[in-house]
Order: sequence, then structure tokens, then C-alpha cells
Amino acid sequence: MTPQELKQQLRAGADAVEAYLATCLHDRQIPQGLLSAMEYSLMAGGKRLRPVLCLTVAKLFGLAEAQVLPFASAIEFIHTYSLIHDDLPAMDDDDLRRGKPSNHKMFGEATAILAGDGLLTEAFAVMGSVAQGDASIPADRVLRALVEVATAAGSGGMVGGQQLDMEYTGREGVSYDELRGMHAMKTGALIRCACLSGAILSGADEESVRRLRIYGEGIGAAFQIVDDILDEVGDEAQLGKPVGSDIEQGKTTYPSLMGIDRSRELAQQHVDRAVEQLRPYSGAEADFLRSLAQYIVDRVS
Amino acid sequence: MTPQELKQQLRAGADAVEAYLATCLHDRQIPQGLLSAMEYSLMAGGKRLRPVLCLTVAKLFGLAEAQVLPFASAIEFIHTYSLIHDDLPAMDDDDLRRGKPSNHKMFGEATAILAGDGLLTEAFAVMGSVAQGDASIPADRVLRALVEVATAAGSGGMVGGQQLDMEYTGREGVSYDELRGMHAMKTGALIRCACLSGAILSGADEESVRRLRIYGEGIGAAFQIVDDILDEVGDEAQLGKPVGSDIEQGKTTYPSLMGIDRSRELAQQHVDRAVEQLRPYSGAEADFLRSLAQYIVDRVS
Repeated sequence: MTPQELKQQLRAGADAVEAYLATCLHDRQIPQGLLSAMEYSLMAGGKRLRPVLCLTVAKLFGLAEAQVLPFASAIEFIHTYSLIHDDLPAMDDDDLRRGKPSNHKMFGEATAILAGDGLLTEAFAVMGSVAQGDASIPADRVLRALVEVATAAGSGGMVGGQQLDMEYTGREGVSYDELRGMHAMKTGALIRCACLSGAILSGADEESVRRLRIYGEGIGAAFQIVDDILDEVGDEAQLGKPVGSDIEQGKTTYPSLMGIDRSRELAQQHVDRAVEQLRPYSGAEADFLRSLAQYIVDRVS
Repeated sequence: MTPQELKQQLRAGADAVEAYLATCLHDRQIPQGLLSAMEYSLMAGGKRLRPVLCLTVAKLFGLAEAQVLPFASAIEFIHTYSLIHDDLPAMDDDDLRRGKPSNHKMFGEATAILAGDGLLTEAFAVMGSVAQGDASIPADRVLRALVEVATAAGSGGMVGGQQLDMEYTGREGVSYDELRGMHAMKTGALIRCACLSGAILSGADEESVRRLRIYGEGIGAAFQIVDDILDEVGDEAQLGKPVGSDIEQGKTTYPSLMGIDRSRELAQQHVDRAVEQLRPYSGAEADFLRSLAQYIVDRVS
């Protein structure tokens, strides 16, 4: 698959997710002031990487896109809530997100906290909805996938990773194991779970579920290392934030621990491990997942 | 059932919930700083009304306490997270909760936000767990009950009610319908859902599910009216906050709209409607639910 084809497929997946996100909250009787704040961040763009991963894995094992689209999109609710809360003055205190005012700058801090809370809670209602209606997915699979997402997003996963990130910021001597463990929770868990839940929902056998879990783990780890590299050598216009902001904020990064070259090698190792897991699978979805993994490291090669 | 017996049974239910809450987070690999903040608020006492309602309804329709205890306790996670976030400086800015420093006063604002996020997210993982292991509840029932809880707690329920409460505070001319709608979302939805989910989990027939939903709605409405009355005529030591604080904060209350006597009558009407729904049921659990409903209004008679 050429880089051009990969980008087209990524865009097509993101478009399907965005079309769903644009209307899915409208029949939920949400007060207007809160709905506006939720949709402001939900529709602020982004690659929609997590839902596209979930959709693609589910299609690889035979589900139709329409069956799994709400569940996949609900993972984006969770990603979006985490960005809103991370930007709050008490957390990273960011005024901008993707070049636009952050949620609390637009709607005030109280509404931003509630918009995050609302997106997180609705995510679970939306996930559960794929067990209803025509072409529904069996409830036992949906419940298992939902519990995996809650565990990945929760205090032993994403939320716990954000806590560790705050504790490590400004601290001297954060080790490789600490850094890796923190990122595996903060960003890795939800990316891994996007792949894992796609496999569970489609009723894939346990060996395949295991493979897709490891694939997701590998690309999640590579993704974070590349993010750290780009923070040192990237293009400010593309990044949407100043180069070097991690170091300035007192954050330990992969390049600060082991240099750029070794970080790049490490990212490639994670990608190789991820791609290796896809060996049994062929067809368009498997090709896409392989190309996507390689594309992550190619951004810094 | 005498008031003494009612209180003993409430205490027994709360004790079962607290025993579960005290250890249920320990095997979830939560960073220590975050775990401490989550448990601080989770173990800060309270009547545990919502989980006790869920447990009692589930027992009324034949489930054993051990089968439903995790699900019921997870509703208390959600109630607790809402208190932590409501107390934040950007929201109600409360330094005290049940006579102790509020979560952000003890652990800082960032950790308090994350402790709330963590409790909300873990709630759904814990709810899902009752479909596993010995004496498990069928996944389709668990998923349906979980979606009801997410909907009740979400942006068309509890979170949306908090948004409306903030919008109405300090505003002149909030109407009865607005006040009732706001409270039905902010406090009513989760109390209603505690009863409703107990009925769904136990596989009660749809007529019974409907009855328990209306029962929960009635006691939720009565509970809030009584809370407003106590804010005007209650005992400061028992309330744990100054009498008259609602009015001082610019909040519209039932007594401010219709006076104390008419408010008391309205609460009794809601309780009567709730108790009427229990007519088909007999036995210890039904007696308890009837007595509990009446106890809510007796606090202000």
C-alpha cells in the first residue's frame, strides 16, 4: 500500500467516524450549553486513529462497519474527554488545542469539566447500543469489550498514566521503565484497547484476540516514542505546538534518555513486533494495519 | 417496620457496601497517589442510599446479595465522583464535605479531577464484572442495566442536571417545571436508576421493571424536596452545612417557590405515588422499600 493510499483510507475511516459523531448526541436531551461544549471538542478534528483502528480490526474479522461504528466512535468520546480535562488550568493549563481555544477557554472551567464528564459517561451508553437493533452484536461480546475499554481508560490505565505524568514532571532521574510504564498507561492502553475491542466484538478466536492486543500495544508504544522525537526535531507548524515543549515543561522523554537515533530504533522494533502479529492475516484490512504501523515510524525517518 | 428496624436494615446494607468498597480497588494497579484520593472520598461515609436501593430491589426479585453487590457499589462510585467534581473550585468551591476537607483540599485540584474521572470509569468495569464468575448474571441483563446507569449519570441526566443547576443559580424567575426538571436530572436520575437496575439485573418482568422505575422516580423527587426544606428549617449539626445556604447562593428551592407546607405536601404525594407502585409485592424487601420511602418525608414532618 502506498503512503497515498494509506492516507486515503485513513481519511475515509475518519470521515465515517465524523459523520457519526456529528449527530449522535442530538437525541439525548442534553442541555444546550453542555451539548455545545461537548460537540466543540468532539468535532475539532484529529486523525480519529483509535476508532479507525477499532473499525478496521472488526472488519478484518468480518463485522460490517455499520455494526461497530457507534462502539468505535465512543472510544473517540473517551479520547476527547481526556484532552479536555488534560488542558484544564489545574492540569496542563493549555489555552490552545489543535490551534483553537481549548474547551475551558471557550466555555469556562465548570462547563469544560462537565463536558468531559458527559463525554466519558455517554461513551459507555453508546458502546452498549451496538447490542441492540438490526445486525446487533451479541451482548456478551459487547460487555466484554466495554469492560476492556473501561479498564484501559480507568485509574489503572489512562487516568492513572496522567497522574504518573504529573508526578514525574519536573522530577530528576525518571527511569526508562518508569517512562515506558507511564506511557503504556497514558496513551498505550486506549490504543491497544481500540484494536483489542474490535477483535472481541467480531467474535475472533482467542489467539487472534491475543495477536491484536499485542499489535495495539506495539503501535501504541511506537506512537509515543515518535511523539517524543517529533517534539525535538519536528516542524512547529505541523505539530501545532513549539518544538522542545516537553523538555521545557520538565518532562523526561525517550530522546532525553537515549538520544534520537536509539529512540528511532526502538520505535521501529515496536512496529516490527506489531506487524509480526499480523502474519496470519491477508486482505485489505490486514494490509492497512501493516502500512499504518510502518507509517508511524516513517514520520521520523 | 419501626423506624428503629428501618435504620438497622439501612445500616446493615450500608455495611455490606462499605466492606466491598474498602478493598475493591486494590487489585487494579492504580498509582498510589491516585488510589489514596479515590479511597478517601469513597470511604468518607454516607448512607449509601443508592447501592442499598439497588441491592434491596434485586433481592426482592430473587437475586442473592453477593451476586449484585459489585454492581450496586459501582453506583456509589458514580455518586462519589459527582461529589468530588461538584466541590471543585470551578464548580461549587466547597472546602468541606461531610465535615472533612473536600478531595481537592486534601490532594490538590489535578488529582481530585483524576480521582473523579477514575471512579467514574472504574464504575463501568466493576458493573460489567457481575456477568463473570460463579453465580453470574446473564450478560444481556448486565449490559442493559449498565446502559441505564450510563444514561442516568450522563449529560442527559446527572451531569446535565449539574450544568442546569449552575445556569439557574443566581437567575431570577426559575419556574417550578425548570426546578423539577433540573432535580430530576441532577439527583433523581441516579436514585431512579439504582432501583431500576436492581429490577433489570434480577430478570424481573417488564411490568415490575416499570413499577420500580416509577418508585425510584418518586422517592428521588421526594428526597430533593425534603433536602430543600431541611436547608431552611433543619438542624445545622445534622445537615453538616449552614441552614439557608441554598438561598444565600442564589438557588431557587421548592420552599422559595411554594412555601414549606406546600413543599411538604408535595413530597408526601411523591412518596405515596412511589409506595403505590409496590402494592403487588410482599415480604421483607417490599416492607423495607415502603418504610424507606415514608422515612424520607418523616424527616421533615
